[in-house]
Amino acid sequence: MPGAVPTYSFLGPEGTFTEAALMQVPGAGDAVRVPASNVNAALDAVRQGSAHAAMVPIENSVEGGVTATLDAIAGGQELRIVREVLVPISFVLVARPGTRLGDVRRISTHGHAWAQCRLWMDQHIPGAEYVPGSSTAAAAMGLLEPDCHYDAAICAPLVAQEQPGLPVLAENIGDNPGAVTRFVLVSRPGKLPERTGADKTTVAVPLPEDRPGALMEILDQFANRGVNLSRIESRPTGQYLGHYFFSIDADGHVGDARMADALAGLHRISPATRFLGSYPRADRQPIEVQPHTSDRAFAASRNWVESILDTESLQVESGSGPSPTA
Amino acid sequence: MPGAVPTYSFLGPEGTFTEAALMQVPGAGDAVRVPASNVNAALDAVRQGSAHAAMVPIENSVEGGVTATLDAIAGGQELRIVREVLVPISFVLVARPGTRLGDVRRISTHGHAWAQCRLWMDQHIPGAEYVPGSSTAAAAMGLLEPDCHYDAAICAPLVAQEQPGLPVLAENIGDNPGAVTRFVLVSRPGKLPERTGADKTTVAVPLPEDRPGALMEILDQFANRGVNLSRIESRPTGQYLGHYFFSIDADGHVGDARMADALAGLHRISPATRFLGSYPRADRQPIEVQPHTSDRAFAASRNWVESILDTESLQVESGSGPSPTA
Amino acid sequence: MPGAVPTYSFLGPEGTFTEAALMQVPGAGDAVRVPASNVNAALDAVRQGSAHAAMVPIENSVEGGVTATLDAIAGGQELRIVREVLVPISFVLVARPGTRLGDVRRISTHGHAWAQCRLWMDQHIPGAEYVPGSSTAAAAMGLLEPDCHYDAAICAPLVAQEQPGLPVLAENIGDNPGAVTRFVLVSRPGKLPERTGADKTTVAVPLPEDRPGALMEILDQFANRGVNLSRIESRPTGQYLGHYFFSIDADGHVGDARMADALAGLHRISPATRFLGSYPRADRQPIEVQPHTSDRAFAASRNWVESILDTESLQVESGSGPSPTA
Amino acid sequence: MPGAVPTYSFLGPEGTFTEAALMQVPGAGDAVRVPASNVNAALDAVRQGSAHAAMVPIENSVEGGVTATLDAIAGGQELRIVREVLVPISFVLVARPGTRLGDVRRISTHGHAWAQCRLWMDQHIPGAEYVPGSSTAAAAMGLLEPDCHYDAAICAPLVAQEQPGLPVLAENIGDNPGAVTRFVLVSRPGKLPERTGADKTTVAVPLPEDRPGALMEILDQFANRGVNLSRIESRPTGQYLGHYFFSIDADGHVGDARMADALAGLHRISPATRFLGSYPRADRQPIEVQPHTSDRAFAASRNWVESILDTESLQVESGSGPSPTA
Repeated sequence: MPGAVPTYSFLGPEGTFTEAALMQVPGAGDAVRVPASNVNAALDAVRQGSAHAAMVPIENSVEGGVTATLDAIAGGQELRIVREVLVPISFVLVARPGTRLGDVRRISTHGHAWAQCRLWMDQHIPGAEYVPGSSTAAAAMGLLEPDCHYDAAICAPLVAQEQPGLPVLAENIGDNPGAVTRFVLVSRPGKLPERTGADKTTVAVPLPEDRPGALMEILDQFANRGVNLSRIESRPTGQYLGHYFFSIDADGHVGDARMADALAGLHRISPATRFLGSYPRADRQPIEVQPHTSDRAFAASRNWVESILDTESLQVESGSGPSPTA
Repeated sequence: MPGAVPTYSFLGPEGTFTEAALMQVPGAGDAVRVPASNVNAALDAVRQGSAHAAMVPIENSVEGGVTATLDAIAGGQELRIVREVLVPISFVLVARPGTRLGDVRRISTHGHAWAQCRLWMDQHIPGAEYVPGSSTAAAAMGLLEPDCHYDAAICAPLVAQEQPGLPVLAENIGDNPGAVTRFVLVSRPGKLPERTGADKTTVAVPLPEDRPGALMEILDQFANRGVNLSRIESRPTGQYLGHYFFSIDADGHVGDARMADALAGLHRISPATRFLGSYPRADRQPIEVQPHTSDRAFAASRNWVESILDTESLQVESGSGPSPTA
Repeated sequence: MPGAVPTYSFLGPEGTFTEAALMQVPGAGDAVRVPASNVNAALDAVRQGSAHAAMVPIENSVEGGVTATLDAIAGGQELRIVREVLVPISFVLVARPGTRLGDVRRISTHGHAWAQCRLWMDQHIPGAEYVPGSSTAAAAMGLLEPDCHYDAAICAPLVAQEQPGLPVLAENIGDNPGAVTRFVLVSRPGKLPERTGADKTTVAVPLPEDRPGALMEILDQFANRGVNLSRIESRPTGQYLGHYFFSIDADGHVGDARMADALAGLHRISPATRFLGSYPRADRQPIEVQPHTSDRAFAASRNWVESILDTESLQVESGSGPSPTA
Repeated sequence: MPGAVPTYSFLGPEGTFTEAALMQVPGAGDAVRVPASNVNAALDAVRQGSAHAAMVPIENSVEGGVTATLDAIAGGQELRIVREVLVPISFVLVARPGTRLGDVRRISTHGHAWAQCRLWMDQHIPGAEYVPGSSTAAAAMGLLEPDCHYDAAICAPLVAQEQPGLPVLAENIGDNPGAVTRFVLVSRPGKLPERTGADKTTVAVPLPEDRPGALMEILDQFANRGVNLSRIESRPTGQYLGHYFFSIDADGHVGDARMADALAGLHRISPATRFLGSYPRADRQPIEVQPHTSDRAFAASRNWVESILDTESLQVESGSGPSPTA
């Protein structure tokens, strides 16, 4: 299928922060972008081959989906995170043409977004009535429907950009101006993203039930090799409460010797450990590597052990008549 | 206000799994139950004194709110978890009176619930169209509105019980029959729930930024005293990415000597550590305590150290003319 | 026995490095000093009350006795280290009056001392014949006996100072000019030496046989409280091979909160742990204490836990009719 | 030098427990056995090629030499332990022909041996006078000299066996009937002893000065791979107090994957780590290996990581036009 443009699925509908994240991927503007009604559907499009990759939230999203993402990629057919994207979370208030701020009484948006704009609301539209929406974008687009029973919507700036029929009444109305959230681009297993020196590796590690202290053992596989963690979450496996896996982000790339060694350690403790990708950090902050955990130190240590195992020059053995030396 | 019934807020609307969780609290059936549009609002009702306690989801809910709960109780005015409740997650399909299963084409529910009933849907209503709802209960109640544009809703059994106008077309339509989720009852700080021997303690521990290996140090405070963890999640503080706190559930009660000692250790490493409650485990499974971490062992070890510090009987000191002994 | 001078036993004979260590104790010059033929005998003199304290080697001595010291104070009636002394290890060659260096052929000393002067010997008296002695001092004093069959002895400078009949043929003949060794003054349990901020604590910790990983658990009691170790040795208990105890020197005084807490942790893991003393370091190098392991941090953490346990002001309890708030 | 018998040096003189240890080596009875006056001399004979191997004490000997052995093999030209030997420590009382027990007043032996026979002495020869000897064997042989000024000697049974001129007055006179001590046979680096499943590995690990917590890091290299330690000692390097190395015995053979991996970890932390040998345990007690630290688990974990690194089949990469899949 040469010449075809790539197809991306994403947690929809159009105009959400997730689509904003997707737009940061080079070439995504010209690609086919298919909104999905939930994270599982977005990922299944990739698993089934109808999309090349899916953009889904992985942390602290205003519109949920985070634990769904963690759980969805930890099970089922294997997937790989190939890119991380950060999106500033900035809210706007949109309305139908002609509506003025003073007219607004009933406001729709996703519950999380509503929670994050309460200070602004209390100050500028005291007594505003909240109308739940299934997403920020759905709330905004609902304004265009004939029987809409609310006056305004809180949504991402992207919606207003894409939909000229929805003028912006107010910008930056979120209570936390520096808010940022993380998204990941997920594809089927393939060529690993290149090492950049500022990478992240994600794994899902089932907790072995039969050994006390297994959590410390798992974390020690990283600590022992000087690998820092930037995220850890215990997640119930969904089978029944009490069975857990750990979803972990660690600093570095599986192509780094210390990370490869740590992953091998994880696999021994928990053979069902799943590798979910090594990919560049969105903030491009280089990982500080201590000299004794560098690739060079790993190579030197392996050579040293090899040299011990290879000592065959002298044939001295205990108690069996050592060979003469002079 | 003597004689008044207690007031509970909960993540609404009415008929959700969260209300089902609340109904498990003794006396809640006769109490005032106030639905809130999101977790923060439910908790604020407690903080502001308009509710005595709030029931909110803490894990793996079909309707989200989990990370919101963790974040909300980790900051702001102090709150305490006083009870944990498990609710089996079982879905029913409801419709308006007269609708038969074969008539159903458009179905509304919360996105997470939709994701969890897909196998049943594919089998029994192939090609069903999904209409997003802001909650399972809202989707169900929407059926009663005159201009409803969908045929059926997926919701918790509680809705159907409370609302006779919504007959059940099918029961147990979830893909995972054993699914269970956890909720917590949250109040302002007060008398701690009694020790039962099957308790859980929740804390929020900000990660000290200035020390590498701080995560291992934090976890070692528990491991060192033989305290197991049943949940751990790193959460961004919301200020900016890179600042984290850990939300942790540990086995035991702060009234247990080993837990009190572990918490003291946490406080030294991270003085802003927040205690979020000690309360009985919903599964009532007793904690196995190793002899060397029992209250008795802690008392014995303290006595031993005291006896060393109190040796004043003999006045022998080095180099200053020890007193004669004979 | 008012007015009596103190009595010190020490690993003899007179003129050894151990007596040189004893002479560093204020007042020891005027005290009664009783040489003992071995470390056990020196310590038994203290246990039985015939000496107030005993000076014995604890590390790297040229004349042995080290492991004997560790084992002897780890068992039997309790003893306490109350002072640590460093002695520079410097050797001299002594002979009978009239003997010249060129005449020396046969040399006596303790085997360890002989090993430490070999470079000098090879250079200045090549082909010298070694005559074993039971101590450096015994070898030197043997020169004064009529039937002595060797020409010179290697010994501590102290011997030559105390015995004018033994002129020094050569000084500083040791191969390692900076060599220093450690001795300890041991008494029966009594008042602890004062905290100086530059202290050391010695313990003997039997290894619990029934738990794998017990060594790491033991060491973690120190690491967890930010206490550094300056010495650790596993020692067989003497009963049979395979049973061990650990002899450990740790930085700090049992009067320091972090050390008291670490010792309490040791006692829980291994209740037969023996406290062998807190005493000033001979090198007077102050211990660096991290803020989070200071006495202040320990007090603050205890207060915090107490405040959690004492919350009785509000009578809110789960599910039992929380008290009204307004 | 074909056909020549092997030459062994040992800590002498003849008749000591060390020679008894050497006699346990197959073929040693017919070999050339050269006593050395101290441990360093015994080892230097091996380093210089005049002996094929040296037998020296490594633990708790009645005649010292232990720390000397640890220090001597940790520095200088590399040596390897190739065999471990256990010797029961049993003492006999010997005298000149014609002497009866009732005649004995003055007794010579090494100081440590004297200390270990005190109970028997107090009971059978109360008031016996101690005459220090440089070794048990030297004390015994001294009885044969014309001008001997003592009546009897405490020594190893071996002396009496080899020297018919010294009848045994009493056997098993040690206070601890089950006493056993360890010796090691040391050679130059050569072919490693075969894996037996009941092996021991000895290393010397200099403590890195520049990192706090380095001791725990060192020990974690073993714990992390499920390797138990049977001995650990911190030793001053001899340069000046404060610089340490750790002398460690660990369960297993460098040919075991978990041990090889642990040694590699040590080398990264402390590149001057010295491998001192893998050899069969004298007690032949097999090492229990947990499944997740077996050679098989290590091979499986390496294969898994390799499979991750080798995923080149699909050429999908983030943001660069993923290849079509259908």
